[in-house]
Amino acid sequence: MTRGDSPETVLTPAAASERGEFALLRRLQARLGAPGAAPGIGFGDDMAALAPAAPGWLWTVDMVMDGVDFDSRVHDWATIGRKAMAVNLSDCAAMGVAPVSALCAVALHNGLTLADAETLILAADACGREFNCPVVGGDTNSWDAPTAISITVAGQVPPGGAPVPRSGARPRDSIWVSGPLGGSLLGRHLTFTPRVALGLELARTLRPHAMIDISDGLAVDLARILTASGGLGAVLSAAALDQVVHADAFEMAARDGRSPRAHALHDGEDFELLMVLPANTDPAAAQALGLHALGEVVADAGLWLTEAGGARTEIPPLGWEHFK
Amino acid sequence: MTRGDSPETVLTPAAASERGEFALLRRLQARLGAPGAAPGIGFGDDMAALAPAAPGWLWTVDMVMDGVDFDSRVHDWATIGRKAMAVNLSDCAAMGVAPVSALCAVALHNGLTLADAETLILAADACGREFNCPVVGGDTNSWDAPTAISITVAGQVPPGGAPVPRSGARPRDSIWVSGPLGGSLLGRHLTFTPRVALGLELARTLRPHAMIDISDGLAVDLARILTASGGLGAVLSAAALDQVVHADAFEMAARDGRSPRAHALHDGEDFELLMVLPANTDPAAAQALGLHALGEVVADAGLWLTEAGGARTEIPPLGWEHFK
Repeated sequence: MTRGDSPETVLTPAAASERGEFALLRRLQARLGAPGAAPGIGFGDDMAALAPAAPGWLWTVDMVMDGVDFDSRVHDWATIGRKAMAVNLSDCAAMGVAPVSALCAVALHNGLTLADAETLILAADACGREFNCPVVGGDTNSWDAPTAISITVAGQVPPGGAPVPRSGARPRDSIWVSGPLGGSLLGRHLTFTPRVALGLELARTLRPHAMIDISDGLAVDLARILTASGGLGAVLSAAALDQVVHADAFEMAARDGRSPRAHALHDGEDFELLMVLPANTDPAAAQALGLHALGEVVADAGLWLTEAGGARTEIPPLGWEHFK
Repeated sequence: MTRGDSPETVLTPAAASERGEFALLRRLQARLGAPGAAPGIGFGDDMAALAPAAPGWLWTVDMVMDGVDFDSRVHDWATIGRKAMAVNLSDCAAMGVAPVSALCAVALHNGLTLADAETLILAADACGREFNCPVVGGDTNSWDAPTAISITVAGQVPPGGAPVPRSGARPRDSIWVSGPLGGSLLGRHLTFTPRVALGLELARTLRPHAMIDISDGLAVDLARILTASGGLGAVLSAAALDQVVHADAFEMAARDGRSPRAHALHDGEDFELLMVLPANTDPAAAQALGLHALGEVVADAGLWLTEAGGARTEIPPLGWEHFK
């Protein structure tokens, strides 16, 4: 089953689980990390600092797997290779980092032909090159199991800039998103354009306090920012949220009976940028970059939705989580 | 089945296959590679140049898979995590590069516990730290399929040094190996010590024309050097080869009826360094570093074994190859 085919598997009570990916990451964060690495940059952020001896260089790795992140029975290998690269470029976007080069490691199912393998890897390279990030090396393997693709991307902070972590949100900061959300499973999760240029522009101009790309859902990824920022909370405006519900979310809602708003909040793989801007940011400057306001950071931990009438409901921290 | 459990699967006619990993790599090498990358460093070498903007930095990725590179029914997760890191450190050794930091991406089988996952990743980190190469980030995923682990390592060429490629061999150069070969499947493929210190020392002092770590077998990995160096050949001395047959190769031979010599030539995962030294190298200097002479590079493509009496037999280019 592909990630998100069933709402039951998509919506796991991530924050409540002690057996999930989040728990593993918490344990690893406590034990790992290079001395000298930039604070807040490492296991659990979108990219890690490469090394103290390589200032300004960050890197990231993402593994995508058949039956989870793509479905080789339905998707062609060029589309799959493109996605394997694009998810990494999206991580660069989320840090305000320019992607520079990539490594591609594959464990290919034995049923693939040589042409399939070549198509996959060249598509990853072609996608990378659109963003000045060619594949410069890798590792090719085959096995009886489903195909797994692991791409590593290294990138550079622009001169005078700084990587944008997840951990810098403060109470009263405003929350923004770069595009409409929900229903990406209808196809956008494979064909999205990583917001590399926007991420760089944002880091240079509006200097977000925190940024992330929405891979596991607005609610979960916003919660990641709030947790990384010391246990803050957020209040989202329902009216504002309704402005960023993607047409695909309505189509999904018509199919499965969940609300379009729920799809916008909890579907993953939108790969839009979600960011927290300083409280004194001119909204017009953010809007000029195509950003949509969503709400405000608050001191109390938790995630709430405020209706126009003032009614406030808690948003459950549901979304995609591996390793449940 | 674990890599090497059966001689039939290990010994594939790699060089003859147009459907194998080598064919894929040839096609990729022709199409990929960053403009400005160091000649000979890239897809198909042990490490790739990170980027023209990061001189002296190289990186490598290796994916290890359950049922191929390890067997989780037999091996514990700490041993597996250690190996996943060590194969990358061995690539650094083969380039004469100091490992600096690592990323660890995992697709974990759903049957693993949180403790298993933590054990695996912390073991990879601990192995890396022995060589000043901590895990600084990664990606954790789970799925129904067998576990795959992809570790990326970045390393730095020591000041004044240069990475040692596979492609620099010349006729009359001498061929050396850093330790005994064959039968690694009895356990050394999991517990080997990557020759990082030796690789750095060699690059600094004897300046090999070409170097590789033996991952897929002496015959195949030597053929890689010879092919990368423009289609050269090699003549190995049978007497010299017999001096580097590991005790494990004799034990394997007693079990399966193949000769100890065949195990030394064709078993993979020794992770010793195989190098080509300039023809005028003082043999005593090489021996002082613990190296064992094997033979000589020749202009004619091919791989031969010369017996003491002068009889010459061709060595088949057999070894482990993925993606047959």
